[in-house]
Amino acid sequence: MPVMTPKEFIDINRERFIDELFTILRIPSVSAQSQHKPDMQRCAESLAASLVAAGADHAEVYPTNGNPVVFGEKITDRNAPTILVYGHYDVMPTDPRGEWNTDPFEPVIKDGRIWARGADDDKGQLFMHVKAFEAMCATNSLNCNVKFMLEGEEEIGSTHLYGFCEEYKEMLAADIILVSDTSMIGADVPSITCGLRGLTYMEVEVTGPNRDLHSGHYGGGVANPANVLSRLVASLIDENGHITIPHFYDDVRVFSDEERRDFNSAPFSIEEYKHSLDIGDVEGEAGFTTMERTGIRPSLDVNGIWSGYIGEGAKTVIPSRASAKISMRLVPNQDFSTIARLFEEHFRAIAPASVKVDVKFLHGGAPYVSPTDMPAYKAAEKAIEDVLGKRPLPYYSGGSIPIISGFEKILGIKSVLMGFGLEEDAIHSPNESFGVERFFKGIEAITLFYKYYTESRQ
Amino acid sequence: MPVMTPKEFIDINRERFIDELFTILRIPSVSAQSQHKPDMQRCAESLAASLVAAGADHAEVYPTNGNPVVFGEKITDRNAPTILVYGHYDVMPTDPRGEWNTDPFEPVIKDGRIWARGADDDKGQLFMHVKAFEAMCATNSLNCNVKFMLEGEEEIGSTHLYGFCEEYKEMLAADIILVSDTSMIGADVPSITCGLRGLTYMEVEVTGPNRDLHSGHYGGGVANPANVLSRLVASLIDENGHITIPHFYDDVRVFSDEERRDFNSAPFSIEEYKHSLDIGDVEGEAGFTTMERTGIRPSLDVNGIWSGYIGEGAKTVIPSRASAKISMRLVPNQDFSTIARLFEEHFRAIAPASVKVDVKFLHGGAPYVSPTDMPAYKAAEKAIEDVLGKRPLPYYSGGSIPIISGFEKILGIKSVLMGFGLEEDAIHSPNESFGVERFFKGIEAITLFYKYYTESRQ
Repeated sequence: MPVMTPKEFIDINRERFIDELFTILRIPSVSAQSQHKPDMQRCAESLAASLVAAGADHAEVYPTNGNPVVFGEKITDRNAPTILVYGHYDVMPTDPRGEWNTDPFEPVIKDGRIWARGADDDKGQLFMHVKAFEAMCATNSLNCNVKFMLEGEEEIGSTHLYGFCEEYKEMLAADIILVSDTSMIGADVPSITCGLRGLTYMEVEVTGPNRDLHSGHYGGGVANPANVLSRLVASLIDENGHITIPHFYDDVRVFSDEERRDFNSAPFSIEEYKHSLDIGDVEGEAGFTTMERTGIRPSLDVNGIWSGYIGEGAKTVIPSRASAKISMRLVPNQDFSTIARLFEEHFRAIAPASVKVDVKFLHGGAPYVSPTDMPAYKAAEKAIEDVLGKRPLPYYSGGSIPIISGFEKILGIKSVLMGFGLEEDAIHSPNESFGVERFFKGIEAITLFYKYYTESRQ
Repeated sequence: MPVMTPKEFIDINRERFIDELFTILRIPSVSAQSQHKPDMQRCAESLAASLVAAGADHAEVYPTNGNPVVFGEKITDRNAPTILVYGHYDVMPTDPRGEWNTDPFEPVIKDGRIWARGADDDKGQLFMHVKAFEAMCATNSLNCNVKFMLEGEEEIGSTHLYGFCEEYKEMLAADIILVSDTSMIGADVPSITCGLRGLTYMEVEVTGPNRDLHSGHYGGGVANPANVLSRLVASLIDENGHITIPHFYDDVRVFSDEERRDFNSAPFSIEEYKHSLDIGDVEGEAGFTTMERTGIRPSLDVNGIWSGYIGEGAKTVIPSRASAKISMRLVPNQDFSTIARLFEEHFRAIAPASVKVDVKFLHGGAPYVSPTDMPAYKAAEKAIEDVLGKRPLPYYSGGSIPIISGFEKILGIKSVLMGFGLEEDAIHSPNESFGVERFFKGIEAITLFYKYYTESRQ
């Protein structure tokens, strides 16, 4: 029988936990900048040591062709369920450095928050897992197996983690992947991210005449690729905000009325939304709310468009070419490569004979869904409700974390995205921070997740 | 009574005329390059001397805030008609210099052509007028007054010639302006340019959210300015190739069936046109031929468009802004500032509430028409038919020579565009040339123009 509860253990170790987090935060593990290569190694080693200190049977730093991956585990019982914790120790660059009020790599506590690059994303959030694991071990209350996989390339696309998962598939075997790398709707509105959109990113080029032409001599007589591209792009979305690519919606999961009601019950002010973006009105697919349009419905956006003369003043040219980068956010159960094919076929089909078109697939990622009826989701829901006093809402994020669907594809394991971030944490921006109390509440909630999840599996 | 005809005078002076033209061609009077400033002055002085030598009462070099204007005249009879000859002595830059087969400023004759920068545009063509004037004076056959206005800034927008015309309006008084600075349809298809399109050049900017947004978090929920701009641009032309701006066509001069038949009788091969541009098909306003679309009908072209990420690879951004440069070629009797106003009103009216739009007028020029029934046109027609053996066709050029409509506006004088250039002369390109025989035929035709025009006015 434990001498104390995990919560009691957490409470008496608050100061030490913060000190240890600060040690990690002080390492400038910026994955995008090659001069920080030694810091990546140092950070990985420091985390491996933390895992062993917390109670892991062992923890190792695995070199990759990029930054190392930390793997550690504690196997309590081969028949018990296994939780695989995923997190990343790399952080975003700190520029513009001048806008930071304090040194991004010298964490300080002020106004109840920890200020440092990585305080939330994701060192702060991953370290909650290390400390929750320690609290469980120390109080002898761990009833499952735990594995940690901590990577150093999340901010640059998790390039080498896909291969790592392929190579160590057996070692990584687990029942569920637990991730804290997302945000909640608001401080008073706890939520669990249960959907992530996928992505199909295309580039198109429309070529008209074989050279730039004088718009006086040819204007009106030949197809202008910039006009044609505008026309083609415009036609991809109809007046109801529907994407016109044939079969685009075939695989889109239709949410039940109940799910939509649940999803829309999250507090959301359209006026605040418009005000914060300084727009006169929103725009999107008819029949859906803004939350739904950005969370559970696919979208199509021009990310870049260019053609002809774009300098100062005037040049009377009919450009020879016009290009655009066009990406589509996908929802379950759309397949990104199918969508790429449908897009290309459609774009080629609608191009007039007056131009040639080139369509390239740049990259893609699968949408991800964490079913709200799976035991791990229920365990996370209960754990958060216990700690924060409110049942968390299922949240469908419009963004993409490609590695999450990668895990499902390679390892065959679902993830629970039990994130404790908030918009106000300013991840990726100057003056990133993380609430001190949220850090401890998070640790506590994670211990409860272990408890409820294990119980549900017995 | 003259001792010889102008033609005879021309025939016995061929070698000298060529030598004198070469002297002018050797001066590198490139108006776009400031290091050639002294060459501009030298060229102007050389031309003033040529005019006096040819028989002018006087000729002066007028300084302006830019390059000097040469003015010379011969007044034979205050009651006789006055012809004002306009031409320009400045030339285009010669780059890419490496593509020239000979020195652009050391003229040579080869294959029956004069090879040099300015051989056609416009030194060769304006010098035909100096020599025609000389032939008339020398043979005592000049029955009208002649004025010359030769500028040095045509290739850079005739910036200071407008002010010069305002200032010396009285001195420039004339019945007709005669210009050789255009081309004919083909060597076997003589033509007279009787229409030039005008221009209204606009720049638009569409602003959506107040900052670039993450396309995952916001995609589908907010109006993307690049998508909206594409939609707005696409809507400016309907499926029949008609421009949709209300009242855009109100002032467009409708050509009679006879005029259209005449215009379309010029040889034109749609297959050759498509082949030379490497396009699968032409595109334009329904109900008009390609010649008409580019000559006597207005057009609307995107000259430049830009928004968002236009570098290599992918960036998942919803851009905050999107811009385009859009110009319209205008035909008689459209007014460029009215069209600018109509465009702006329409563009603002069609913009959805989800974006803000900014519309700027960059510049404009009036269309020009040289009525084919005016005596000067008839005189040019007859003169060319006499010399080239075929009645020249009226040609409506899609391009613009803003100073020509400037003359009409400021001086109240119509111009006859009696150009002897050909597409093959490669003006503005490396290896510009001008046919030797065309040079002499042109001189002869100009003397006949004087004759017929004066006769028609008696």
